[in-house]
Amino acid sequence: MSRFSAAYAQGVLAPDFYFACEYLQPYFLAAMQAHVLAVSKLYPEPQVLKLLEAIQCLAKTKPCYQPDIPDLYFSFNQSLEQSLGQEAVGFLRLGLSRNDLDMTVYKMAARDSLLDLMQNLLKLRQVLLEQAQTHLESLMVAYTHHQAAQPTSLGHYLLAAEGLFAKLGERMLMSYRQHNHCPLGAAALAGTGFALDRFYTANLLAFDAPCDNSYAAVADSDWQLEIAHHAESMALHGSRLVCDLLRWAEAGYFVIEKGLSQGSSIMPQKRNPVGLEHTRTRFSRILGHCRSLTLLSHNIPFGDLNDVGTDAQESLYQLFKDSHHALELLSQALKGGEFKLEAWQQELAGGEVAASELADEILRHFKLSFQKAHHLVTHLVNDAHQQGKSLIELNAQDLNRLTELKLSPEFIRQALNAKNFVNKRYHWGGPAPKALETQLKHQLERFGLHQNELGRLKSKVCEIHKGLNEAILALEAQFKSLSF
Amino acid sequence: MSRFSAAYAQGVLAPDFYFACEYLQPYFLAAMQAHVLAVSKLYPEPQVLKLLEAIQCLAKTKPCYQPDIPDLYFSFNQSLEQSLGQEAVGFLRLGLSRNDLDMTVYKMAARDSLLDLMQNLLKLRQVLLEQAQTHLESLMVAYTHHQAAQPTSLGHYLLAAEGLFAKLGERMLMSYRQHNHCPLGAAALAGTGFALDRFYTANLLAFDAPCDNSYAAVADSDWQLEIAHHAESMALHGSRLVCDLLRWAEAGYFVIEKGLSQGSSIMPQKRNPVGLEHTRTRFSRILGHCRSLTLLSHNIPFGDLNDVGTDAQESLYQLFKDSHHALELLSQALKGGEFKLEAWQQELAGGEVAASELADEILRHFKLSFQKAHHLVTHLVNDAHQQGKSLIELNAQDLNRLTELKLSPEFIRQALNAKNFVNKRYHWGGPAPKALETQLKHQLERFGLHQNELGRLKSKVCEIHKGLNEAILALEAQFKSLSF
Amino acid sequence: MSRFSAAYAQGVLAPDFYFACEYLQPYFLAAMQAHVLAVSKLYPEPQVLKLLEAIQCLAKTKPCYQPDIPDLYFSFNQSLEQSLGQEAVGFLRLGLSRNDLDMTVYKMAARDSLLDLMQNLLKLRQVLLEQAQTHLESLMVAYTHHQAAQPTSLGHYLLAAEGLFAKLGERMLMSYRQHNHCPLGAAALAGTGFALDRFYTANLLAFDAPCDNSYAAVADSDWQLEIAHHAESMALHGSRLVCDLLRWAEAGYFVIEKGLSQGSSIMPQKRNPVGLEHTRTRFSRILGHCRSLTLLSHNIPFGDLNDVGTDAQESLYQLFKDSHHALELLSQALKGGEFKLEAWQQELAGGEVAASELADEILRHFKLSFQKAHHLVTHLVNDAHQQGKSLIELNAQDLNRLTELKLSPEFIRQALNAKNFVNKRYHWGGPAPKALETQLKHQLERFGLHQNELGRLKSKVCEIHKGLNEAILALEAQFKSLSF
Amino acid sequence: MSRFSAAYAQGVLAPDFYFACEYLQPYFLAAMQAHVLAVSKLYPEPQVLKLLEAIQCLAKTKPCYQPDIPDLYFSFNQSLEQSLGQEAVGFLRLGLSRNDLDMTVYKMAARDSLLDLMQNLLKLRQVLLEQAQTHLESLMVAYTHHQAAQPTSLGHYLLAAEGLFAKLGERMLMSYRQHNHCPLGAAALAGTGFALDRFYTANLLAFDAPCDNSYAAVADSDWQLEIAHHAESMALHGSRLVCDLLRWAEAGYFVIEKGLSQGSSIMPQKRNPVGLEHTRTRFSRILGHCRSLTLLSHNIPFGDLNDVGTDAQESLYQLFKDSHHALELLSQALKGGEFKLEAWQQELAGGEVAASELADEILRHFKLSFQKAHHLVTHLVNDAHQQGKSLIELNAQDLNRLTELKLSPEFIRQALNAKNFVNKRYHWGGPAPKALETQLKHQLERFGLHQNELGRLKSKVCEIHKGLNEAILALEAQFKSLSF
Repeated sequence: MSRFSAAYAQGVLAPDFYFACEYLQPYFLAAMQAHVLAVSKLYPEPQVLKLLEAIQCLAKTKPCYQPDIPDLYFSFNQSLEQSLGQEAVGFLRLGLSRNDLDMTVYKMAARDSLLDLMQNLLKLRQVLLEQAQTHLESLMVAYTHHQAAQPTSLGHYLLAAEGLFAKLGERMLMSYRQHNHCPLGAAALAGTGFALDRFYTANLLAFDAPCDNSYAAVADSDWQLEIAHHAESMALHGSRLVCDLLRWAEAGYFVIEKGLSQGSSIMPQKRNPVGLEHTRTRFSRILGHCRSLTLLSHNIPFGDLNDVGTDAQESLYQLFKDSHHALELLSQALKGGEFKLEAWQQELAGGEVAASELADEILRHFKLSFQKAHHLVTHLVNDAHQQGKSLIELNAQDLNRLTELKLSPEFIRQALNAKNFVNKRYHWGGPAPKALETQLKHQLERFGLHQNELGRLKSKVCEIHKGLNEAILALEAQFKSLSF
Repeated sequence: MSRFSAAYAQGVLAPDFYFACEYLQPYFLAAMQAHVLAVSKLYPEPQVLKLLEAIQCLAKTKPCYQPDIPDLYFSFNQSLEQSLGQEAVGFLRLGLSRNDLDMTVYKMAARDSLLDLMQNLLKLRQVLLEQAQTHLESLMVAYTHHQAAQPTSLGHYLLAAEGLFAKLGERMLMSYRQHNHCPLGAAALAGTGFALDRFYTANLLAFDAPCDNSYAAVADSDWQLEIAHHAESMALHGSRLVCDLLRWAEAGYFVIEKGLSQGSSIMPQKRNPVGLEHTRTRFSRILGHCRSLTLLSHNIPFGDLNDVGTDAQESLYQLFKDSHHALELLSQALKGGEFKLEAWQQELAGGEVAASELADEILRHFKLSFQKAHHLVTHLVNDAHQQGKSLIELNAQDLNRLTELKLSPEFIRQALNAKNFVNKRYHWGGPAPKALETQLKHQLERFGLHQNELGRLKSKVCEIHKGLNEAILALEAQFKSLSF
Repeated sequence: MSRFSAAYAQGVLAPDFYFACEYLQPYFLAAMQAHVLAVSKLYPEPQVLKLLEAIQCLAKTKPCYQPDIPDLYFSFNQSLEQSLGQEAVGFLRLGLSRNDLDMTVYKMAARDSLLDLMQNLLKLRQVLLEQAQTHLESLMVAYTHHQAAQPTSLGHYLLAAEGLFAKLGERMLMSYRQHNHCPLGAAALAGTGFALDRFYTANLLAFDAPCDNSYAAVADSDWQLEIAHHAESMALHGSRLVCDLLRWAEAGYFVIEKGLSQGSSIMPQKRNPVGLEHTRTRFSRILGHCRSLTLLSHNIPFGDLNDVGTDAQESLYQLFKDSHHALELLSQALKGGEFKLEAWQQELAGGEVAASELADEILRHFKLSFQKAHHLVTHLVNDAHQQGKSLIELNAQDLNRLTELKLSPEFIRQALNAKNFVNKRYHWGGPAPKALETQLKHQLERFGLHQNELGRLKSKVCEIHKGLNEAILALEAQFKSLSF
Repeated sequence: MSRFSAAYAQGVLAPDFYFACEYLQPYFLAAMQAHVLAVSKLYPEPQVLKLLEAIQCLAKTKPCYQPDIPDLYFSFNQSLEQSLGQEAVGFLRLGLSRNDLDMTVYKMAARDSLLDLMQNLLKLRQVLLEQAQTHLESLMVAYTHHQAAQPTSLGHYLLAAEGLFAKLGERMLMSYRQHNHCPLGAAALAGTGFALDRFYTANLLAFDAPCDNSYAAVADSDWQLEIAHHAESMALHGSRLVCDLLRWAEAGYFVIEKGLSQGSSIMPQKRNPVGLEHTRTRFSRILGHCRSLTLLSHNIPFGDLNDVGTDAQESLYQLFKDSHHALELLSQALKGGEFKLEAWQQELAGGEVAASELADEILRHFKLSFQKAHHLVTHLVNDAHQQGKSLIELNAQDLNRLTELKLSPEFIRQALNAKNFVNKRYHWGGPAPKALETQLKHQLERFGLHQNELGRLKSKVCEIHKGLNEAILALEAQFKSLSF
């Protein structure tokens, strides 16, 4: 019988053990190696080298859950003691607490997932930029308040969308720099009396520095909240794009690729854009994971606790998993889907969505005040509708009857032409191809900067194992040279 | 290569398939059987009987994920067609949509989990009632605004706590009755033209009735929101109990059992009440799962969608899992922990927490107004503190000096005595043993009613398989009699 | 200078005072009267009668915020002492704490708002039922997964929607019964030694009984969580209806009344359905208020605290306010808006949304298995689309070419006719007028029951002031008779 | 009778109008002036100057709600037209939409509140740094898992806390730079055909640049989500500090100032730390406001909508208000409260919280492995407890009996001394005064940088009115020079 209650063993210890085995093992081993390497500077004894080698061997084992062992770390301890004896393993335990070790491991695991998320986000941004480039001149109807508002281009819309994610990407890089600090050496919370070189271990594990306050190192959940907030921004912005894409899919402006759609078990005519639906649900669930993460830090002491340690890790894992899939699905939907430009063209042909420009043109050519021009156009629209016509179909007689201005049908057609509408709006931020090119250029540059920076961060993290191995080899060499 | 995009297959189809295999298979088979039995009334053909038997055999198989099969139901279809041919399986498909089938399956799975949750909640209530019974006369210090306020008894506190969960339990039973309706027969959303007997299938699957609107049957997420709300109430009430237990554990009023505690990897003196910490984290995570579930129903169409179908099921599963463990941990902590009554006794001995009663007694004996009596006691407390004494230590000289009333030290001691304090409060709802007995009696009766009702609900659900088998045997018998 | 810090006075005391003056004053006075009436049974002295009269006079005053008075209750105390002297006011203070008084007041205020909310909800349900009755035979296209799925009727959809709110209404009534218990007499938390008749005060204030545990009476936030959960269900269900209405408004199936719409400051052609947008935002904000309310009960002690007392009241107030406006807007939008049935008629005319019925008909007439029939229809749809036709436009040659069955264009037209489709679905829960009439009858009955019950609850609450006055008059009479 | 429905007028238009009058008026007027100044470059006509002067005069008026005027902007328009005639006001309307105007106004109002919030946060950080400086050597007991863990210093704890808010402060500055872009000129969404100088208006309104995409300018809610996320981080970190302070207030380690406390209406002995309770509740409510803000952006189209426009502003306002008060209360509580160092001193005197150091010392002096040393100390602790002693009270006989090592009582006393414990931990991040001085120096520098940067941002915003006036005077001068 276990020394732990069944409720605790089954509800906490066992699932945590399996979770650690599946997702955290390599981080534990790397952090343990880094710590022992730091200890080896204080105690340059052959036992330490043996210990390092034994830890490396653990990478090949698959630990078993044992009811009396509280966690994976103690399971590793047991294995090491069985092979090396207690004495040697003592060097691992020296100046180390589960508090700083666990937090280091959790941050390393989350860091890898975060870098993947940043990569996924870049991928989405790339698709948005590519589609924007393709559609710089593709006209569409922009809606406000759920009603057709004005012509613009798909490129304009897509660059606007990329801008949201670019700001997020920039914040993620900044936040990464804020939090890429190593808890190792903080021990329980107060650091230790052993002169462990925290900069050395931080560097071995690809952190920029050790955490600058040992209490905060084990108590601070800020890095988790930041991840939650990044994911929440992504999910909310993403939910708005999905909302538009689904609306367009309903109305025939967008056709999802077959590989993201399903037929019906009962309705032969259907092709459901389920890929987008599932994207939406992942975004909604991400908001739930964010709530878990934030509430784990609500109204609890500021100190080392399971709330912001072990028990936050599954929520983080779920958040990263749903984020990964959501971004993959959305990128694929945007990349593989087809925008039905002719459907928009048809809606634009009616001309009414450009009505505000007709008012502007009347103002310009007939020197009317804005209000009069706007009022006149409203009058024209209403009259046309009463006749069952569209604004663009008003003929010369109509115009004569409706206004004293010399408004010709041709004048109206020119003013309501969507292409003209867009091309005139070439000022900063506008949808004219000329303006969009400036925006695209800037956004591509920003994209490139973020891509480079991410590459740099990833390559540093990728070299952890190489660095640890080199340090172990150097230690080995040092002992050999001493033994002569 | 699959006809589905990698993002869809890996991010949605595969995990959904594995989830369905692990958690939903028996419900699929039962619902399919019930549907085919209803079909058999319209088409009493031997093929239908074969189909029923083949479905029963599926219970023993372990389906494999195939990239081109969209889900478990179609995987079953494939197996059945392979063994029986397409014709026979046609009777399964007749008048059935994945929409109504899936929703039926989801409700059945959630129903089992909900019944377990209700059972867990009863278990917690039982522990609370038992401990209350044990501690009807165990005095404790009640806090308000984070300061010692008045004496009461642990029994009073625990009965108050049980009352919270009893109200929740009552609501769960009521809500169960509201939602235990069967979607089967709603087909895609409009029902079918086949005269399937929906009351028959509902009854076979232990539902109280078929859903009374076929559109709502596949679109309604109310039952999910109700589960979320039950769990949220439980988590919030639970978090408050845990907060008190942890505070008591810090201050020495409560000692958690060893089986729910852990030592430290570095601090030899520690015994951490981690069982309670993990309870708190599960409660916090439950709030996250609730947010997932509620947001899946936010700003989406009212109609059949994956948001309230397939994609809500994992959140429900996580919610039930964390709820189960939280209730187990809390019940065990309360059952196995030790209340340190002597520590409270010591805090009560000072007497100051009963100061309000001293004011009342002065009012009663010396006919002072409440304000004057209250003011006098404040004066006594302050003077005592300035002398470095406690209120109860004021001697005759002190009292002479401080008031013109004939207040004796004995009068004060009697008034401040915690046991007296509690015993006087025997009115409706009060902490005196006499009053608590009334409360306990009522709460035990209510507990018994809920227990009986839950038993009735569970036994009905337990008999589904028996009922299906009997129906199949009856059909077999009918065919046999016909074949003569 | 105040004895309170500026941060406290400006950030807490002053706004709480103004809030209490604006929203809580009558409840304070009623609860104070009820308490003094109970005291008068123990101390039948003329001073008590004077006190009661003075409290009644307070209803006509407008209290002023004074920096040194902590709250409205103490402000009342001050006024009373100024007019009656301390002695008389002592009877108010006797056995009363701000804890039980405040909680009583908060519950009374919330009760009134809750009854209004229940009334608003009934109003929405009434509109849904009336519109359903009008549109029992109005055909529409039902969507699943954001694609046209099957014909049904608007009545079917609206009855489904009413069903959601009816379940909620039933739960609100049940929950009202659970929580309509009076905290008065609980004093600080342990009750008092004075033999105050708690059933008497509860009855005077239209509660069904006093709270049955004095600790819970001041600590329990369950009633607040219940309100949050009711509002959350309402907001989520409501958000789905709004989503559909806005979609229909975009696509021309629904036109909002002018009084709920706005034009544009710049776009002459626009008529924005802003009434629905604002409904959606109120639903979203309600979810925020719910979060405030739930988190105020998260990870805090189970005891009397400002978190579930004073500081929850503004969130409750905001929740009720937004709920009121959301329901008013939605009811009005549904009542005053116009469903464009001809637009749906046009979409239905194509016939494809009834394709599943064509498969069923083929199955019925040609004895094909479901799969074969379904497959054949898919084949027909695809071929029609390749020809640029709709399914219904396939001619005799097409059919000859595509299938060996004797399928005539007339057969297809009949099968795809939306009216036929709906009329065949007359079974339990289906959209055929015959089935809908059953549903409507049941739903009207349920509506009537809820309306009656709500009326009963409201009239009881309305009579509080009458009851208090009668009790005061009776007391007056008693004194008069004694004075002879 | 209004042209608007009662539900719309009462539930939306009227409250929005009053809100705008109270909180947004100056921003409207500044933005309108900036826009007209830009128009004046295209149309340098005297009417424009008159218009500018009339707008300035509006600052002195108090607009009245009129049922037929949809909002404050149209109310201003009406006033202007009444005094200047329609023609002149036409220059205001030219190229301007409520979409870009409103969003500009909302961002300006939020910017002022955000700068105040940043100032408040700096104030809190200053208090934390000052208290840390005072308490660099004040010993305290640090808890992990709700149990006493190790000695550290209050300075260490407070610097850890400041670090959380410093990271947040850094992010707020960065995020400010990301979002301080001006929507003006985006018109409805596509910009305008008039060559308005958007850099000019942006500069006049103290924005760093115009928004770089006119679609995003009116659709993007990222800036709101960022504010929500900043507030959420602040609230969660803050809630943890409050949790500790309240725990310390319960246990006698911290005494809140009188000005933030309250007595009881019934319990004479009480002094409730209500200032901290109210801080906690504001943090909880902030989380609710965050949810409102985030859900307003959930599952809605990406485009101009009331959800992220008008209807988000009250939630933002509530969020800023509660944030302001929470930070004021917490700063005051920390500044005015008293840390009872002697109470901690007493708890530390027992020595057991330093037990891990005793193990380390045994390891150092007797060359034991960590595990053996740790195990021995556990053995000593248990034996002491069984004798009813504390670890530090073990005498020479005890030690002889318990271990073969030459452990003296003096050795144990030295090892368990809390001051020694802390002083040995002088490495990077540790609590020794030497290490804390380094941390403090760095944190003061960072504080200074943030303070300077905030000052720079605030002074730029403060000069808006000056800048507008100068521009108007310059225009006036230009007209005068032309008129010669």
